Amino acid sequence: MRQHRFQKDLPFSETEYERRLALTRAAMERAGIEVLLVTDPANMAWITAYDGWSFYVHQGVLVFPDADPVWWGRNQDTNGAIRTVWMGDDRVIGYADNYVQSTERHPMEDLAQRLIGMGLEGARLGVEMENYYFSAKAYQALAAALPDATLIDATALVNWQRGIKSAEEIAFMRKAAKISEKIVDGLLERVEPGVPKHQVVAEIQRDAILGVGDDWGDYASIVPLLPSGSDAAAPHLTWDGRPFNKGEATFFEIAGCYRRYHTPFCRTIFLGEPPEIFRSAEAALVEGLEAGLEAARAGNRACDIADALAAPLERAGIERGARCGYPIGLSYPPDWGERTISIRSEDETVLQPGMTFHFMPGLWMSDWGLEITESILITENGPAECFCDRPRQMFVKP
Amino acid sequence: MRQHRFQKDLPFSETEYERRLALTRAAMERAGIEVLLVTDPANMAWITAYDGWSFYVHQGVLVFPDADPVWWGRNQDTNGAIRTVWMGDDRVIGYADNYVQSTERHPMEDLAQRLIGMGLEGARLGVEMENYYFSAKAYQALAAALPDATLIDATALVNWQRGIKSAEEIAFMRKAAKISEKIVDGLLERVEPGVPKHQVVAEIQRDAILGVGDDWGDYASIVPLLPSGSDAAAPHLTWDGRPFNKGEATFFEIAGCYRRYHTPFCRTIFLGEPPEIFRSAEAALVEGLEAGLEAARAGNRACDIADALAAPLERAGIERGARCGYPIGLSYPPDWGERTISIRSEDETVLQPGMTFHFMPGLWMSDWGLEITESILITENGPAECFCDRPRQMFVKP
Repeated sequence: MRQHRFQKDLPFSETEYERRLALTRAAMERAGIEVLLVTDPANMAWITAYDGWSFYVHQGVLVFPDADPVWWGRNQDTNGAIRTVWMGDDRVIGYADNYVQSTERHPMEDLAQRLIGMGLEGARLGVEMENYYFSAKAYQALAAALPDATLIDATALVNWQRGIKSAEEIAFMRKAAKISEKIVDGLLERVEPGVPKHQVVAEIQRDAILGVGDDWGDYASIVPLLPSGSDAAAPHLTWDGRPFNKGEATFFEIAGCYRRYHTPFCRTIFLGEPPEIFRSAEAALVEGLEAGLEAARAGNRACDIADALAAPLERAGIERGARCGYPIGLSYPPDWGERTISIRSEDETVLQPGMTFHFMPGLWMSDWGLEITESILITENGPAECFCDRPRQMFVKP
Repeated sequence: MRQHRFQKDLPFSETEYERRLALTRAAMERAGIEVLLVTDPANMAWITAYDGWSFYVHQGVLVFPDADPVWWGRNQDTNGAIRTVWMGDDRVIGYADNYVQSTERHPMEDLAQRLIGMGLEGARLGVEMENYYFSAKAYQALAAALPDATLIDATALVNWQRGIKSAEEIAFMRKAAKISEKIVDGLLERVEPGVPKHQVVAEIQRDAILGVGDDWGDYASIVPLLPSGSDAAAPHLTWDGRPFNKGEATFFEIAGCYRRYHTPFCRTIFLGEPPEIFRSAEAALVEGLEAGLEAARAGNRACDIADALAAPLERAGIERGARCGYPIGLSYPPDWGERTISIRSEDETVLQPGMTFHFMPGLWMSDWGLEITESILITENGPAECFCDRPRQMFVKP
C-alpha cells in the first residue's frame, strides 16, 4: 500500500485491507471481470476505508487486478476521500459539480471518460446492477458512453466476500453489541404508559451515539422502529408523538453501531397484563429461537436455521411468511443487512465460522406484532454465539 | 377519495392530496404517460401519505389517470401502507417475501404481472430512471417482464410538481425551522474545546427528536455533518469521538424535520481567535448571502441567486465550484434535496412564490471550510423569507 500524506485514522490494519482486496480480485477473476465498479457505499468502505455521507450523489470505487483501487466521486468529496481511504492521493479523482443532479449530463459520462483514458474502453466491466446507488439511468449512461465495453452484472460480488468476518471486524461488532444492550436497557427503564414515543426515541438515540466507555456510537443504517398495539402488525413504521398505552405491546427494533458495524437487536415490551395469545406466541418464539441457535452451526445450511425455527411456531399455529434473518456487519443507509444470504427454507448456503447474522423471526400478524431477535456469530464448533446478552423474552411491565 | 377502515392520522387535508394527484396526472398527460410507477419514497409519500422505513426493498405507487393510486410493496409492509395511505385497502397490494433480495426472482416481475392483470401490458409506463430506489436491475427486470410496454423516463416528474409548496406544507416547514433553531442554539451552548464531538451530536439528535412544544421531531434525511479544522474541507464527513479544539472552525450542517419536512440550516463555530482568512471569508459570504436573498424573488431565475452570491465572493478571491442551493421540503434518506432545480449559473428556472430552497453556499477550501446558510421561501413580493431566525454569521467562542 502506498504512503499517504494525511495522518489517517484507518479503522482496520493494512493486513485487513489486503485481505479484502485479495478476496475481491479473486472473485473478479472467477467472474471474468477486468475492472469492477463498486457503488455500494458499504462495499466502497470495506475495500478502501472511505467513509462519508456522500452517497446521495454518484460515486464509486474502481477495483483493478494489478493496481490500487481508484476512488471516484464529486469534486467536493475528494477532500473526504483523501482523508479516509488508504490509497495514495493520486488514486482519488473527482468530477465537476455541474454533473450533480443535472438534466443535461450524467456523472457516469465522466467515469466513462476516465476509463477510456486508462485504455479500458473495451473492458469487461463489472457493475452492481441491484444497488440503491447504481440507478437505472446510471447504467444507461455508462453503457452509452462505453459502447465497446462489456458490462457484467456484479451484484453482491463484493457483499459475498464480506460474509466471513475477520477477528478485527468481530471486535467492532462486539463494541456495537454493547451499545445495543445499552439501548435496550434504556428502553426497559423508560417505556411507561403515558410517555410520548418520540421522547423515548430521543433518549435512546442519545444513548446510541454516546456509546459505551470510549467507544462512541455511529449512526445506524435504519432508525429505531417501535410500533405499538395494532400498528405492530407493520414492521417498518417509525415513531410519532403519541404515548405508550397500557394493554399494548411495542416491539423495538434497534442496532448499536460502532464505526459502521451493526448488531441489530429487538425486544418487545408489554405494558400491563399480556393476553394469552402473546404468552403462547412468546413461548413458541423463544423455543424457535433456541432451536435455531442450535442449528446455526458451521457446516449446516441457512435453511436449517429457518426450519428449526419453524417447527415450534407451526405447533403453536403461527405461520411466518417472511425470511427470518440476514447477514450483518458494515453498512450504510437504507439497510443494515448485507443482501446475500436470506435465512429461509429455500436458501441452502452452507454456514461457515465467522459469518454473522441478525436472526430475526419477527411476528407481524394482522393486528399485533412481537419481535425477539439475536445477532449471532457462527463459531468453529457448537451453536451460534449471541452478540448481546439480555434475557430472551418479552418484557412485561405491570 | 374512498373511505378507509382505520383511524388514520393523515398529515394533510384531503384537498391537499387532491391537488397533488391532479398535478401529477396533468404532468403524466403532458409526458404521454398512461401509468406512472413512482419509486422515490418522497414522491410516494407526497401522493399517498405512505410513511415507513421500507424503502430498502422494492416498492412503488402506481398512478393512473382515472382511478385511485395503488400502493405496491412487500407483503409485510402492506400493513404499514393500510395504516398510512389515504386510498382504500383494496388499493394496497403486496408481493411474496421470497422475492426479497432473491437471486432467482425480482419483485418487478410481480409488479409486471399486476400490470398485465390490469390489462396494461402494452401501456406507456413512466419510471423514475434516476432514483436511489429504482435500480438498474429493477429496470431490466421490469422491461423484460413487460415486453409490449413502452417504458418512458419520468425522472423527477413528480419532484417538479412538489416545487411550489402549499400553505399546509409551509406550516410544516415552519415547525421544522423551529427545531433547526433549537439544534443550533444547543450547538452554540455545548461546543467547547475538549468536548468530544460525538457527545455534542448525541445531545443535538436528542433535541431534534424531542422537537419544540407539541411538535415532535422526525428523523432528518441526512445525519448531522460537523467536520472541524482541516477536515472541514470535506463537506460530508460524519462525526467521531475526537474533541473540538481551540483554534479550529467547525461547520454544522443540520436540519430540523417535522413529519418528513426539512429546513436545513448551517452555521460555523470558531473556537478561539479566527485568523484573518476566516474573517474576510465570513464577510464576503454574508454579503453574498444577502445579495442572494435580495435576488431570490419571484420572476427572477435560479441563476440570478447564484450570480448575486458569486460577485462578493469573487471580489474576496474565493471561487466556488459547487452549486449553492437546491429545493427542499418532504424527503427521505439519503438526501433532503428535491433534485430538480440547482441554484447555479446555468440554471434558468424561474422562481415562483411558494418555492423553498436551501440557499447553501458552503465554502470548502483545501484545508478549511465555512458554512453559513439559510432555508428560504420565495414570496409573492420582495426578497426571500428565511425560515430560521438566527444571526447570519460565524460564531466565535473565545
